[in-house]
Amino acid sequence: MSRDGDRVVSRSITLNQLGEFGLLQRLFRRIPSPSRTVLIGPGDDAAVLRASADRDWIVTTDMLVEAVDFNRAYSSFRQIGYKALAVNLSDIAAMGGRPVAFLVGLAAPGRTPVRTVDEIYRGMLTLARRYGVALIGGDVSAARQGIMISVMVLGLVEPGTAVTRSGAKFGDRIYVTGTLGDSRAGLEILKQKRRLKPSAMESTLIRRHFFPTPRVEFGRLLSRRGWATAMIDLSDGLASDLRHLCEASRVGARLEWNRFPVSAALAAYARRLNRSATDYALRGGEDFELLFTVNRARVAAVEAAAKRMALAVTPIGTIVSKGLGITLIGKESREIPLTVRGYEHFKHS
Amino acid sequence: MSRDGDRVVSRSITLNQLGEFGLLQRLFRRIPSPSRTVLIGPGDDAAVLRASADRDWIVTTDMLVEAVDFNRAYSSFRQIGYKALAVNLSDIAAMGGRPVAFLVGLAAPGRTPVRTVDEIYRGMLTLARRYGVALIGGDVSAARQGIMISVMVLGLVEPGTAVTRSGAKFGDRIYVTGTLGDSRAGLEILKQKRRLKPSAMESTLIRRHFFPTPRVEFGRLLSRRGWATAMIDLSDGLASDLRHLCEASRVGARLEWNRFPVSAALAAYARRLNRSATDYALRGGEDFELLFTVNRARVAAVEAAAKRMALAVTPIGTIVSKGLGITLIGKESREIPLTVRGYEHFKHS
Repeated sequence: MSRDGDRVVSRSITLNQLGEFGLLQRLFRRIPSPSRTVLIGPGDDAAVLRASADRDWIVTTDMLVEAVDFNRAYSSFRQIGYKALAVNLSDIAAMGGRPVAFLVGLAAPGRTPVRTVDEIYRGMLTLARRYGVALIGGDVSAARQGIMISVMVLGLVEPGTAVTRSGAKFGDRIYVTGTLGDSRAGLEILKQKRRLKPSAMESTLIRRHFFPTPRVEFGRLLSRRGWATAMIDLSDGLASDLRHLCEASRVGARLEWNRFPVSAALAAYARRLNRSATDYALRGGEDFELLFTVNRARVAAVEAAAKRMALAVTPIGTIVSKGLGITLIGKESREIPLTVRGYEHFKHS
Repeated sequence: MSRDGDRVVSRSITLNQLGEFGLLQRLFRRIPSPSRTVLIGPGDDAAVLRASADRDWIVTTDMLVEAVDFNRAYSSFRQIGYKALAVNLSDIAAMGGRPVAFLVGLAAPGRTPVRTVDEIYRGMLTLARRYGVALIGGDVSAARQGIMISVMVLGLVEPGTAVTRSGAKFGDRIYVTGTLGDSRAGLEILKQKRRLKPSAMESTLIRRHFFPTPRVEFGRLLSRRGWATAMIDLSDGLASDLRHLCEASRVGARLEWNRFPVSAALAAYARRLNRSATDYALRGGEDFELLFTVNRARVAAVEAAAKRMALAVTPIGTIVSKGLGITLIGKESREIPLTVRGYEHFKHS
């Protein structure tokens, strides 16, 4: 038995029992506090390093494992490559940084055709060119089974302006970019349809699953202007990621159910299944939109700037004190505690 | 079919057929030339980035895959963790950098005990503390089978002083640090002995396999003084890594067989098996010593500085013109072309 923060965890339990977030917490509990060079260590969307007065570096890594994070039965390798880089660019965006360079670790069985690796890189390089990010290195290794892609991205930000998860304050408005829940619906459609031809509405949702748009330009705006008090990207789902932001900021939140931005495609899809689009918005993962908080004095400026960039941003709630927890004002204005979680590795495996 | 440099490669061939070095060459062939920010891209031990006038960043990644790069039948997880970080620190050392921070991507099956992950991190953190390197982030993912560890390290170097593979010049002396071939002998012993108790000599070689010493301090000295014209770390074996250095520098080399530094333990081990210790030195991988070239005018200074640091450095040959290729002056002073290669992923799988 070993003491893990306030919890005592037996070392013989498995990763399935501990879960992804429990494991990350455990791994990073012994980490020393920030130093002169390490401004922000583990626990945010990305780390922040400083070695000179005029720039800070932002560094992040994310990996995709075959049969866990992607499935070749319903993804092309080009789509997988695109996404492997996109999720990392989204982490840089969530700190307000400009992505500059990336490295790729790739493990694959020796019997893999070269064509497969070419396609993965083609997917990454298409996105890299769009964002002006340079491939600067990597490593390849044989693997026994399945493909594994590990990507690391480095970005730059003006000194001291990186936006963390921990600055949300009582009274701040909570915003999201774009629409929520599309990616999860797209994945559901893929799993059901396999090789059947999807409808136009279904194709829209599938595209949102395969090709998330890292909100780099808007993230840059928020960091440069100092408009966001806290920010995180939506990878695990709104319910889960808002919880991470609130825990880091030591605040609570009140979400307004009827404000969640939902695409016409998702609304139609949910209606057809007689399910709630809100539920997709709350629990769906992999939207890779930005969730951020704004002081009320800056709300008008943020909304005007987003409009000029033709990017939808939607206020979906308000930061409250920690003691009030995270609640959802649902139908008939009833306020209920938000317990729904998003995706977590191991817990579902 | 697609044109790959001068070679036409069918896209239907497999990674086994192409090999690790062929694959890396293919992946990085479309890479744009260095930019204002990217001073050195793929193809060296690490990439070099510049965002301000007073410091350059060095970035590298290496991954270890279970059953390919390590085997739990004869390694502890602490040893595996140590080595996963050590091989990356060695890449930073080979550029003359000071390692500063690292990130870890870890994929493992859900049934893995938490204890296992703890041990891997313990191995890494032991080494990290010794070198003053901070763990700044990472990612964890479920995996279907086997553990995969992907490590990225960031280091700093004075602007423009990173030592590449490409600066070796005709007439330069070729040096290595430490002794060569121990790691490979240690691995052989592990594979044969399994749970039998090794002798003291065998334990020495096994330790060299599990706990390579990244030559950071000496690499720093070489970059700060500008003494090394080219440098690479010995990961794949002297024969293979010297070839990489010579190709990057567009030179040949003449190696002096009788000068290879071999430990007493390796000499005794090879003698017992009636094999050549030189062969271990030439072909053995994972030594993680530095191979570097020095202008003859700097040879005395380098040797004196190494002596003050109590580090063995040994001249093992001379850089010659590219047309002469890489040759080995063997027994009876016969000069033979060096064709022996070291370890390469996929080719052996």
